Amino acid sequence: MLEQLKEDVYRANLDIVRHGLVLMTFGNVSGFDRASGLMVIKPSGVSYSDMTASDMVVTDLSGTVVEGAMNPSTDTPTHLALYKAFQGIGGVVHTHSTHATAWAQAGRAIPCLGTTHADYFYGPVPVTRRLTAEETEDDYEYNTGLVIAEALAGIDPKIMPAVLVNSHAPFTWGVTPATAVHIAVILEEVARMAALSVSIAPPEEIDRHLLDRHYLRKHGNSAYYGQKK
Amino acid sequence: MLEQLKEDVYRANLDIVRHGLVLMTFGNVSGFDRASGLMVIKPSGVSYSDMTASDMVVTDLSGTVVEGAMNPSTDTPTHLALYKAFQGIGGVVHTHSTHATAWAQAGRAIPCLGTTHADYFYGPVPVTRRLTAEETEDDYEYNTGLVIAEALAGIDPKIMPAVLVNSHAPFTWGVTPATAVHIAVILEEVARMAALSVSIAPPEEIDRHLLDRHYLRKHGNSAYYGQKK
Amino acid sequence: MLEQLKEDVYRANLDIVRHGLVLMTFGNVSGFDRASGLMVIKPSGVSYSDMTASDMVVTDLSGTVVEGAMNPSTDTPTHLALYKAFQGIGGVVHTHSTHATAWAQAGRAIPCLGTTHADYFYGPVPVTRRLTAEETEDDYEYNTGLVIAEALAGIDPKIMPAVLVNSHAPFTWGVTPATAVHIAVILEEVARMAALSVSIAPPEEIDRHLLDRHYLRKHGNSAYYGQKK
Amino acid sequence: MLEQLKEDVYRANLDIVRHGLVLMTFGNVSGFDRASGLMVIKPSGVSYSDMTASDMVVTDLSGTVVEGAMNPSTDTPTHLALYKAFQGIGGVVHTHSTHATAWAQAGRAIPCLGTTHADYFYGPVPVTRRLTAEETEDDYEYNTGLVIAEALAGIDPKIMPAVLVNSHAPFTWGVTPATAVHIAVILEEVARMAALSVSIAPPEEIDRHLLDRHYLRKHGNSAYYGQKK
Repeated sequence: MLEQLKEDVYRANLDIVRHGLVLMTFGNVSGFDRASGLMVIKPSGVSYSDMTASDMVVTDLSGTVVEGAMNPSTDTPTHLALYKAFQGIGGVVHTHSTHATAWAQAGRAIPCLGTTHADYFYGPVPVTRRLTAEETEDDYEYNTGLVIAEALAGIDPKIMPAVLVNSHAPFTWGVTPATAVHIAVILEEVARMAALSVSIAPPEEIDRHLLDRHYLRKHGNSAYYGQKK
Repeated sequence: MLEQLKEDVYRANLDIVRHGLVLMTFGNVSGFDRASGLMVIKPSGVSYSDMTASDMVVTDLSGTVVEGAMNPSTDTPTHLALYKAFQGIGGVVHTHSTHATAWAQAGRAIPCLGTTHADYFYGPVPVTRRLTAEETEDDYEYNTGLVIAEALAGIDPKIMPAVLVNSHAPFTWGVTPATAVHIAVILEEVARMAALSVSIAPPEEIDRHLLDRHYLRKHGNSAYYGQKK
Repeated sequence: MLEQLKEDVYRANLDIVRHGLVLMTFGNVSGFDRASGLMVIKPSGVSYSDMTASDMVVTDLSGTVVEGAMNPSTDTPTHLALYKAFQGIGGVVHTHSTHATAWAQAGRAIPCLGTTHADYFYGPVPVTRRLTAEETEDDYEYNTGLVIAEALAGIDPKIMPAVLVNSHAPFTWGVTPATAVHIAVILEEVARMAALSVSIAPPEEIDRHLLDRHYLRKHGNSAYYGQKK
Repeated sequence: MLEQLKEDVYRANLDIVRHGLVLMTFGNVSGFDRASGLMVIKPSGVSYSDMTASDMVVTDLSGTVVEGAMNPSTDTPTHLALYKAFQGIGGVVHTHSTHATAWAQAGRAIPCLGTTHADYFYGPVPVTRRLTAEETEDDYEYNTGLVIAEALAGIDPKIMPAVLVNSHAPFTWGVTPATAVHIAVILEEVARMAALSVSIAPPEEIDRHLLDRHYLRKHGNSAYYGQKK
């Protein structure tokens, strides 16, 4: 079942490695099929080089494995929580990419310092609060999804397709797994540039009008970037 | 028309990728033919690997497309403003290269701290002022060109072939597209070294006599670097 | 003798190069066979590209060469001290990997700032005290092993498989040479992320409950990461 | 004449590129034949990929070209000054390698923070004073050599085979061109680690006894690192 989505999720998992976002097996991509309510995700702790598309695991929204011989990624409940919380997304990516993780470990949102950021993220990339001991000890991965949703409260996940989980690492999302990978690549570079800017001089955030201009020329109703569709 | 310039602009666009200055499609190179008053520029938002020389777009100085099936780069009006403001230049490069962009985001000129810098840039690489809300909302890309020209006021663009657009990223220029690419590569390394120097200890600028010596041994009337022409 | 272990140690020595942890010949891996009490280690100052598995040197616990035509690594006494101090380990890695060495040179333990760290190291990665003049002048390499053991006093080396030797560089260990290499790769990335976090903002350590959760979901009795064994 | 030395100098010039120490044409290596008093050096401003061994230029100690069709490197007088000042050296390397140059631009000696440094440099790597206006305006490159010799006054150039020229970049030297390249590679990594250590916490220099131990175990009369010669 869902052979095309398995192929897409498989390729997206290889892409996060190819883009240098993954050390060892620290990363996973899933895709979600809203029609059937089923998710396809990478198996847990498996080497990227040994993996094939048919190893991808299919689960329902409760996390029950519907198809697949292996355990799904340990982060499965986080992915499911995001598909439940964010209507309209079809792909989720989790990496421990170096610079985005450095911001998550510093417990700081990534301020919007320039147009590279503004082209993709409509404001600072939020950081979650730390999980409580209770949230950590019981249903940890699912609660990680809930604090992400909490950090995005009042923000349309389509205009803020990324978050930093405090003391942990980034999650990104998009309409498809490939889009979520694209965002993860950009996020890492934006995080790197912001860390460098901070090391040069205490920077000030981008002006609101410039943020609007850049975000909206790519994403708004009157977007004029790229070719006619 | 302008087949050689299209080929040059095409190759220059590939070169900024090969030199690691471009993430995704964040970058563009143009070339200008002063005889005809026509500019050749990369099409907007097109993948570098799919692009051919014949995809390059030709526009006149008003930005009207004279030849080409695709939209020109969204930054077209900025390039045109630079060709109008800076007599004698024939190539313009825009990238979001990591370290130069970090300085632009910090809103700081790159101080001249050493001879690597002095060999190419005759003083600090300037940063523009921030655009006003009006300049951003109306004719944004063209106004970006105007604030660049303003930042260079009183400076010969031949001895200062680069600028940082505040909260944005660098532009570089030269006699040809290839020269402008060469400058963009050097600028990124100069920006990287300067950021490192700042992180080691608050550095002092190079002495004026050393700046003169290095810039002029390569570029002055009595230049003695390299081979006889 | 010990042909399989020689092959494993040889491959592990190549792996630390492949992972970018070694500059020139600054690195060595050993393996220990508890049954015979013999250690296999890289020869001293030999180029990685010229080396073969049969060049690996076999020594007993006193450091006497039992087999092999070349001198063993100068760090041999340190490796032996660790095999004596830490029961149950079968591989030791020493590198001068850039970021872990930077922490060692700063004389600071690497604080546990996130889950990447917590997945592998159950708390801050300790730094040794500086060796005294006497310890340095007499039996230096063996004393290096002793101050490592001292820095781990009261800590199970299985849950803290790495240390920073003050003013020097890291050592890591594990059940096999391959495991110790894996830890060395992770340590370098954890050191890099921590240095970046510190440069962004003074970070706070991970909460104890999150450290427990991550370390134990991979290593505890009720570990649930990866596939069923 | 000096065909073997031309080959050695040619290969050494390619090696500094291969090791990532050179941007564009910012680098040059020379070799010196004490018997004939002649130096072989890279031609000025020539692309590394176009160059052959027979393009190497031969000069005498006064800088007069004895053989070769091209101009020698502009830095020729600096190299010559070093061969005159430092008896026993047979190779000189000049690069603008990123991290060593960052220290030169910061105007700071590289403190000896660890054993990687101590294995090669017997104390802090010195930085020259800034050149005066007179020294810069008249015979600049030769005066650069003189301030290097001045910075090494009282230090045996064999135990301190590197220097940072203030506001400029490093020079290294050795018995042969290949040795000087080896030192240049190590210097760049030592500079990188030291910059990182400084960014983590204000570090203290290595203890004198540890510096002695490491430098002398590799270079002293009772050196015991590596294989029997």
